[in-house]
Amino acid sequence: MVGVGLIGTGFMGKCHAIAWNAVSAVFPQADRPRLVHLGEANAELASRKGVEFGFEKASGDWRAVVNDPEVDVVSITTPNQFHPEMAIAALAAGKHVWCEKPMAPAFADAQAMTEAARRSGRIAALGYNYIQSPAIRHIGTLLAEGVIGDLNHLRIEMDEDFMADPDALFGWKHEKSSGYGALDDFAVHPLSLVAVLFGRVSRVICDMARPYAERRTAGGNSRAVETHDIASVLMRLENGMSGTLQVNRSAWGRKGRIAVQIFGSKGSILFDQERFNEFQLYVTSDRPAEQGYRTILVGPQHTPYGDFVPAPGHGLGFNDLKIVECRELLAAIRGDRDTRLIDFDDGLEIERTVHAMARSFEQERWVDVR
Amino acid sequence: MVGVGLIGTGFMGKCHAIAWNAVSAVFPQADRPRLVHLGEANAELASRKGVEFGFEKASGDWRAVVNDPEVDVVSITTPNQFHPEMAIAALAAGKHVWCEKPMAPAFADAQAMTEAARRSGRIAALGYNYIQSPAIRHIGTLLAEGVIGDLNHLRIEMDEDFMADPDALFGWKHEKSSGYGALDDFAVHPLSLVAVLFGRVSRVICDMARPYAERRTAGGNSRAVETHDIASVLMRLENGMSGTLQVNRSAWGRKGRIAVQIFGSKGSILFDQERFNEFQLYVTSDRPAEQGYRTILVGPQHTPYGDFVPAPGHGLGFNDLKIVECRELLAAIRGDRDTRLIDFDDGLEIERTVHAMARSFEQERWVDVR
Amino acid sequence: MVGVGLIGTGFMGKCHAIAWNAVSAVFPQADRPRLVHLGEANAELASRKGVEFGFEKASGDWRAVVNDPEVDVVSITTPNQFHPEMAIAALAAGKHVWCEKPMAPAFADAQAMTEAARRSGRIAALGYNYIQSPAIRHIGTLLAEGVIGDLNHLRIEMDEDFMADPDALFGWKHEKSSGYGALDDFAVHPLSLVAVLFGRVSRVICDMARPYAERRTAGGNSRAVETHDIASVLMRLENGMSGTLQVNRSAWGRKGRIAVQIFGSKGSILFDQERFNEFQLYVTSDRPAEQGYRTILVGPQHTPYGDFVPAPGHGLGFNDLKIVECRELLAAIRGDRDTRLIDFDDGLEIERTVHAMARSFEQERWVDVR
Amino acid sequence: MVGVGLIGTGFMGKCHAIAWNAVSAVFPQADRPRLVHLGEANAELASRKGVEFGFEKASGDWRAVVNDPEVDVVSITTPNQFHPEMAIAALAAGKHVWCEKPMAPAFADAQAMTEAARRSGRIAALGYNYIQSPAIRHIGTLLAEGVIGDLNHLRIEMDEDFMADPDALFGWKHEKSSGYGALDDFAVHPLSLVAVLFGRVSRVICDMARPYAERRTAGGNSRAVETHDIASVLMRLENGMSGTLQVNRSAWGRKGRIAVQIFGSKGSILFDQERFNEFQLYVTSDRPAEQGYRTILVGPQHTPYGDFVPAPGHGLGFNDLKIVECRELLAAIRGDRDTRLIDFDDGLEIERTVHAMARSFEQERWVDVR
Repeated sequence: MVGVGLIGTGFMGKCHAIAWNAVSAVFPQADRPRLVHLGEANAELASRKGVEFGFEKASGDWRAVVNDPEVDVVSITTPNQFHPEMAIAALAAGKHVWCEKPMAPAFADAQAMTEAARRSGRIAALGYNYIQSPAIRHIGTLLAEGVIGDLNHLRIEMDEDFMADPDALFGWKHEKSSGYGALDDFAVHPLSLVAVLFGRVSRVICDMARPYAERRTAGGNSRAVETHDIASVLMRLENGMSGTLQVNRSAWGRKGRIAVQIFGSKGSILFDQERFNEFQLYVTSDRPAEQGYRTILVGPQHTPYGDFVPAPGHGLGFNDLKIVECRELLAAIRGDRDTRLIDFDDGLEIERTVHAMARSFEQERWVDVR
Repeated sequence: MVGVGLIGTGFMGKCHAIAWNAVSAVFPQADRPRLVHLGEANAELASRKGVEFGFEKASGDWRAVVNDPEVDVVSITTPNQFHPEMAIAALAAGKHVWCEKPMAPAFADAQAMTEAARRSGRIAALGYNYIQSPAIRHIGTLLAEGVIGDLNHLRIEMDEDFMADPDALFGWKHEKSSGYGALDDFAVHPLSLVAVLFGRVSRVICDMARPYAERRTAGGNSRAVETHDIASVLMRLENGMSGTLQVNRSAWGRKGRIAVQIFGSKGSILFDQERFNEFQLYVTSDRPAEQGYRTILVGPQHTPYGDFVPAPGHGLGFNDLKIVECRELLAAIRGDRDTRLIDFDDGLEIERTVHAMARSFEQERWVDVR
Repeated sequence: MVGVGLIGTGFMGKCHAIAWNAVSAVFPQADRPRLVHLGEANAELASRKGVEFGFEKASGDWRAVVNDPEVDVVSITTPNQFHPEMAIAALAAGKHVWCEKPMAPAFADAQAMTEAARRSGRIAALGYNYIQSPAIRHIGTLLAEGVIGDLNHLRIEMDEDFMADPDALFGWKHEKSSGYGALDDFAVHPLSLVAVLFGRVSRVICDMARPYAERRTAGGNSRAVETHDIASVLMRLENGMSGTLQVNRSAWGRKGRIAVQIFGSKGSILFDQERFNEFQLYVTSDRPAEQGYRTILVGPQHTPYGDFVPAPGHGLGFNDLKIVECRELLAAIRGDRDTRLIDFDDGLEIERTVHAMARSFEQERWVDVR
Repeated sequence: MVGVGLIGTGFMGKCHAIAWNAVSAVFPQADRPRLVHLGEANAELASRKGVEFGFEKASGDWRAVVNDPEVDVVSITTPNQFHPEMAIAALAAGKHVWCEKPMAPAFADAQAMTEAARRSGRIAALGYNYIQSPAIRHIGTLLAEGVIGDLNHLRIEMDEDFMADPDALFGWKHEKSSGYGALDDFAVHPLSLVAVLFGRVSRVICDMARPYAERRTAGGNSRAVETHDIASVLMRLENGMSGTLQVNRSAWGRKGRIAVQIFGSKGSILFDQERFNEFQLYVTSDRPAEQGYRTILVGPQHTPYGDFVPAPGHGLGFNDLKIVECRELLAAIRGDRDTRLIDFDDGLEIERTVHAMARSFEQERWVDVR
């Protein structure tokens, strides 16, 4: 029985908690994990959340979780800047680590985390949940089977509108210290899809933009925005494909869009995370007069949908993707070497690509990722 | 702490199990239930599922669950014909009951269950999960607010294709003893939406059809199909609306469709369960040149989406609806009188309507429901 | 060279005029018609429209058109009540007739028109333009080829919102003398599609409804509405299919919707006139994990799209359908016996069905069409 | 009465012919043009097409058209390389010119055409039909009214699949002499929309790609492809917006896609030419819980839809856009200075931008357009 520690109880902390609670009911083959120790910023909050989330113990100090001998794996769901210290400490304590993405604001920290993971011999996985959906998995299968032929072009966009209100006050996400902007917040997600579907990015050139040059502060003044809500990238992949990647966190009307267009010599595939229970396939093997994009609703034929619902077209939810990820993590901990996870090595490559994009913007030129 | 018993571990049994496991992590206000006793057809299966689903005890006899003094509420997820005996026994033992729908093949049995529930003073809820989605709840709010004005017309369709294959063998669902066909399988679902959004149906006339008159049997012969995969109904509601209800379990291409069209004097609303994380609203208060159906993605503004995910447009899944239902049930057990549940009384009205539809088909005439 | 007369210059009159002007440029095989004589209610309007529409002569009396020896074919686009007299006179004068639908408010008049057409030996065609679209034609081909197998069920809806405003004043369409309401206005259109795709309707039962019981008059009083904006019909076809037909001219948000759902033993087809440059096809011959509705954009493979545009997906317009119809009419006049037209005989059958629907509502029972 | 000459009878020649035939029936205010003289590559073809298209005269020499004293305006619809000589000759002969886009393969030729137009004082318009659609026009109105606030970002894609088949033989469009590839074929269309909606492009960086490095020749050999089917561009506009422009003529599944995404401080607008009878609008002035993209079907409120059809949602076709353009041209010829046309000056700016894109690809760096 795997002992679980959880640090953080915000958006992703709750998402991990739901996954740890539900994973065994969904995936019968999984060992039922034991929810051992929850850590939060203070004892009172930890205690309250510990009850809600079903953990046996709760502490106001994350180190108590990391060092608990009954804990085998630690979920790290705190803000990004805390990931390095926590992950490295957990790995040093011999724990498996399940850390939310991105790894860290600074590339050097992500490198240090990766080093720690390599040294530890433990499972060190990142929370890239979008790669787990049945649609994305089946798209991967179709690409591998050559159903749309030789791949030649990719377009991928990720857009939300949580920064779109010009009247929202200046906040920490507008400060340079928070990173580049949309590039950190969003680009890692489409790049996780690129990683599992196509492999590595080789060259990039990026443009960034600020929809709003200034924002009002809580004090009533105006302050220049230092990050960029929009980034647009031309890119080349190592597999020879050309493509573009675009992200925008000020895109009014978009809520959770990750739109993917994949073109091959025999067809094409479309996907949008806002309707992630379906995808679209166009194949030239259909009779010409009846060629068209098929809207395919995910169902039991698309792994692992059937573990959630035996009937097609009933739909998985965002939290279900984390349950799938949790199952993969448990399998990896059990020794299964064929799991679908983005580990720290893969994650470092994603962050390397993001930093290359930022560099190409600053230098106004094409940049090689490696 | 509420003690939970679960009878049945199939499609709906697993769905209940996931809900019981996850409800407290999702809804912090809920008491964390204690998973006490699981019942299945035999001890071995019960034992295995008990471990997977996290129950303390497991029995091959459902009566052990119903009579377990540590059990406060019993989930009944067995085939419909077993509902009456189990539900009545559980209520007689002083337990709250959470029973899957429809109540029973025979109306008299459903009446007996309702009687038992009234006598018991316990919570007796049915598993009508589609009424729980944030979209349907928000549609209810919009209707109550008069956003689309006075309601005048309703169209509702429920279609799947699990019976559509003409080469599938004759099975028990093709025998008259299983009921009317699509009317039993499906009509109760749209009628549950009608119940929460519009109230009671007053008059109906129904037509039924068999796409395939015969099917091959396992033995190689051919046998006449006795049930109807298709039913189409004209109806009048007590609130004065006219409408239609159509169901088809042989509708190739449809996987989990429940398409609703609601027309009022100031606008209209569209919904389809296959994309239940969105709905469409047309209002005449928009400027004429920009009137159009808005595709609204559910988000934290639509209760109780925000308890699952704080960001809009990320999507709930089918199983999440059962978690919402579970929360409502727990609230009702705690004494909350303002919960959204279809109890045995409401459920009986739904079944009365279904039987009136069947009668109108047999008699080829309009039939009053009451 | 075919000499053309046109009576009426409203919505449909203009549509005919565009068609007569453009048909030869679109369809090279067509004889270039000569636009001879335009008739309107008065000489001044006739004269002005004659110039705009390119007619050689113009008269304030329709009889001058009908009796013009240079006129070979007469387009009749006046209000429905004038159709019988004009069509019968034109046929008697030895002209071919192209008359807008429906034929006439009274069934007896439609019968008289049909009799006149039979006696005349001339082409007598009705303006059922929706049957001419490349999508509907290709759907017909697919059905004939058996691509979706044996047909078993049909749903068809036609909805617009031009009557939806409760504050619009009482008008002639609310008077009983105008007919039944939506049934006359709309039902003939879906029935024209039924005629070309499936054949005859055998039995019906209809319900009708009034969204607004009264309307204000121009004089400031209130008056009871005598027609029905909504009609819903259960029906059986002679080919054995079951189905429903629904029409609503008070359906806020719907502008030109004619939604068709066709179910067969091997697939299904969807179509909506609001997006008539595409249709959807689901076939079970696709690999199970990739079955889904294909959205097929019409293109040169779908007759007669290629006569308008050589590139696929560029789209035809509403007026283009009338150009196609015009081409069919010219071919019929030239003696081609294999044209796609709804003649007076076919049209009479459609009107017979509408009247049977109305009767079934009044008598609250199933009615046989013949 | 305006005398019309037409050179060329291919895709665009036919499109012009339909427009010249139908324009007066559609737009009553237009003078009815007189179809005087048609020119084609040889007398026989000219003569045949002259009859079909309704022209009085026909010649196998385009100079006869240009020099016909009865001709006031010349439609030039021949392959691009012939545009300069014909347009300059027609302008020199004192004719108005309506020339298909793009102007010419070489920028210097386009400049010479623009010079000739300036000197002539005649109307010199280009056939950019996509700017004429009611949806695009209304989007322009909404942007001008500030309905979506201050504009900040633009994405525009144009994709078709006529080059997508890897087994299609090497043709002239794969030779360097034909131009850059998709950039010439497609980019001018989205740039025409940029011109009317947003103004000029200031800076660009472009990447191009070849899906297929080689193609088989008719002779059975293999030959290297010299043009690029894919181009992706980062761009900055003079109005301060950032954006991207992407074109792909080997995009399997895309038939006539021009997808536009426009983001502002108060909302966003989406459009796709494959469904050009609708557009989508998201505005933050809607109540938060009901914000969503409205799918707005074009109707009489959207100029000049109502000139074609008085009822909304019935749809215009591709050829109708050319009829609108023809009306604008006739108005300009009559002296109306407020028409919506892309003249040679505007067209030259579009071609300047395309060439800057190509240069930025060759030089692998950002390039200023002017």
